[in-house]
Amino acid sequence: MKILTTGFAPFGGETINPSYEAVRLLPETIGEHRITKLELPVTFEGTPALLAEKVRALNPDVLISVGQAGGRPNITLERVAINLMDARIPDNDGYSPEDIPVEKDGETAYFTTLPVKKMMEAMNEAGISTSLSYSAGSYVCNTVMYAGLYLATHEFPGMRSGFIHVPFIPEQLEGKKEGTPAMELSMIAKGLEIAIKAL
Amino acid sequence: MKILTTGFAPFGGETINPSYEAVRLLPETIGEHRITKLELPVTFEGTPALLAEKVRALNPDVLISVGQAGGRPNITLERVAINLMDARIPDNDGYSPEDIPVEKDGETAYFTTLPVKKMMEAMNEAGISTSLSYSAGSYVCNTVMYAGLYLATHEFPGMRSGFIHVPFIPEQLEGKKEGTPAMELSMIAKGLEIAIKAL
Amino acid sequence: MKILTTGFAPFGGETINPSYEAVRLLPETIGEHRITKLELPVTFEGTPALLAEKVRALNPDVLISVGQAGGRPNITLERVAINLMDARIPDNDGYSPEDIPVEKDGETAYFTTLPVKKMMEAMNEAGISTSLSYSAGSYVCNTVMYAGLYLATHEFPGMRSGFIHVPFIPEQLEGKKEGTPAMELSMIAKGLEIAIKAL
Amino acid sequence: MKILTTGFAPFGGETINPSYEAVRLLPETIGEHRITKLELPVTFEGTPALLAEKVRALNPDVLISVGQAGGRPNITLERVAINLMDARIPDNDGYSPEDIPVEKDGETAYFTTLPVKKMMEAMNEAGISTSLSYSAGSYVCNTVMYAGLYLATHEFPGMRSGFIHVPFIPEQLEGKKEGTPAMELSMIAKGLEIAIKAL
Repeated sequence: MKILTTGFAPFGGETINPSYEAVRLLPETIGEHRITKLELPVTFEGTPALLAEKVRALNPDVLISVGQAGGRPNITLERVAINLMDARIPDNDGYSPEDIPVEKDGETAYFTTLPVKKMMEAMNEAGISTSLSYSAGSYVCNTVMYAGLYLATHEFPGMRSGFIHVPFIPEQLEGKKEGTPAMELSMIAKGLEIAIKAL
Repeated sequence: MKILTTGFAPFGGETINPSYEAVRLLPETIGEHRITKLELPVTFEGTPALLAEKVRALNPDVLISVGQAGGRPNITLERVAINLMDARIPDNDGYSPEDIPVEKDGETAYFTTLPVKKMMEAMNEAGISTSLSYSAGSYVCNTVMYAGLYLATHEFPGMRSGFIHVPFIPEQLEGKKEGTPAMELSMIAKGLEIAIKAL
Repeated sequence: MKILTTGFAPFGGETINPSYEAVRLLPETIGEHRITKLELPVTFEGTPALLAEKVRALNPDVLISVGQAGGRPNITLERVAINLMDARIPDNDGYSPEDIPVEKDGETAYFTTLPVKKMMEAMNEAGISTSLSYSAGSYVCNTVMYAGLYLATHEFPGMRSGFIHVPFIPEQLEGKKEGTPAMELSMIAKGLEIAIKAL
Repeated sequence: MKILTTGFAPFGGETINPSYEAVRLLPETIGEHRITKLELPVTFEGTPALLAEKVRALNPDVLISVGQAGGRPNITLERVAINLMDARIPDNDGYSPEDIPVEKDGETAYFTTLPVKKMMEAMNEAGISTSLSYSAGSYVCNTVMYAGLYLATHEFPGMRSGFIHVPFIPEQLEGKKEGTPAMELSMIAKGLEIAIKAL
């Protein structure tokens, strides 16, 4: 299988983004799957177009996007993407959409088509803490997840697609409140690898 | 009264540190108090020395240090500093102390000598959410708080001293988990000003 | 207008549920709106039926359901309900659905039809901390929200419907970690009243 | 060695308290250590007296007190107890101390005398998530920890003493916000057992 994995560039006052750092650490092949890696900017309009372009060029069997959810204690598998862009702060293009659909003719929401419970179990068995999440928010993470599932529905019906959120890494912890959870970057990357193997 | 206020330079993968940004926004005088501002680096060894030097030069009546505790929902007034440096990650000098006392001949802990409940009430009455905290951690924030109270105990018995933690500002929120709290920088600065007026 | 408000009975090892306690404190009329109150049990199967029965009897203009989300720092207005019941623990009937749709012929998700941004602003102006939420989870709260919006779509197209989550009250705080947020019950009830006035 | 372990009765609107439930599951002996178990009420005044009475009767080598810190993601080993009782809500006797020392002639704080880093490593190696904490708050948990260390300092210099906070168990989760962490009761009990073995 061909697997496209994406991560984000740094944003929001941070100089590191563990999402693309972890994707970068993935091997070129996992089992018989070929892994392609794509770094995405944090923009509402450019990112879905970039993603669609790459999907059309590669025609992957699976699309897995990864983003940072600093403060969550473990790796979370997103179950649902909603047709809504609602930003509290501007993206890297300076665009700040308010209550705008990602796709005018899209459904209210899509459920992920990744086998998230199976992926969760595989990671948990390997001692990597994981849980399910029912919201990827209303910012660029949700937009990318929705864009992938819309693309699958309309153009690539065989492509499975979903989104994984990863925690802070320890290097980002100071200046955050006591007890803010973090996970080693190597463990995040190992978790992604195990999740991909579980497909 | 002469009041020395300190904040920190950015650290931990962030490009902004709202603690010194808020201190910077304070006026030169609050009521009859003269405000002096000092930006501190995030180092275990250099910072107490820098602080002591400034206190000896200025001989302030009050010392208020400010740091970021990203993820806390409001401004927190620290009640206690402990005689312990224990770092999970190196400071800006590359120093990573493990279970080292801040001062070999210091007490196990000092309580703040600021009137924190009065300061809390004044901020809350102005609609600025505040609470008390019983731990400033074991990293550089606690070290600075402990160093100030040790200095007061040993050299400046008339100086009142304490520490205030401030939340993220909205510009830092994206890439953090849904529901991560933030406070506008202008509101943080106003909160510090009201806290100082309450002295 | 006729407004139906619902809250839940205690659950999950707690002896108090601030959701129905707050609903109970609402006046009989708010402006020209008549308020009807309904206490719901925490069950996946019984609760939608009970709700439908009450809606058919009353034919309300607005349905507002309220639940506890202990640990959230403020009152949250839910924006989306998903067609999924997935329980980690059994409900009060001992039923523990796994990946079951709330309604077999329902859409993947419904957006709330309450004017949540207007309601949020009204509460915030009154000094009651509020925010938007993009997930009501996958337990009975989400089921009740989904059931209300499904009912509106299929039988009561003029009825607006949505869900509000409320924090712990201070009486519930001990034994929870330092810094767990809470809101006074009277403030929660006032918040609900203001939100209803904003309709 | 004789080891005295304590846990608390339910409190704060909860019907379960995992702290004593976990203590109750400990075996009668761990390695060559005899385990004695004591359930404590949540009171500022009665609890230290009860504890002292039991310590004087048993003369244990080690005293480990356990309490619930619902919302923390893992088992936390407390490092410091402070000489302060400051309650937001009344205890089970209806007593609500404000800024009162636990012991008039006590030090500002005591550090734990348990080998907490060793205990943490042992639990982490067994796959049980653990971290250190620098505050046991200012309610009855801190009072019990302080009382134990004061007792050791003044009457039982050979007794090591400390405090462990445990998370919610899954049965307590519903009605709490999405992502509230929990740990199985059997895993908490196993963690305590491993921590005791590490002594």
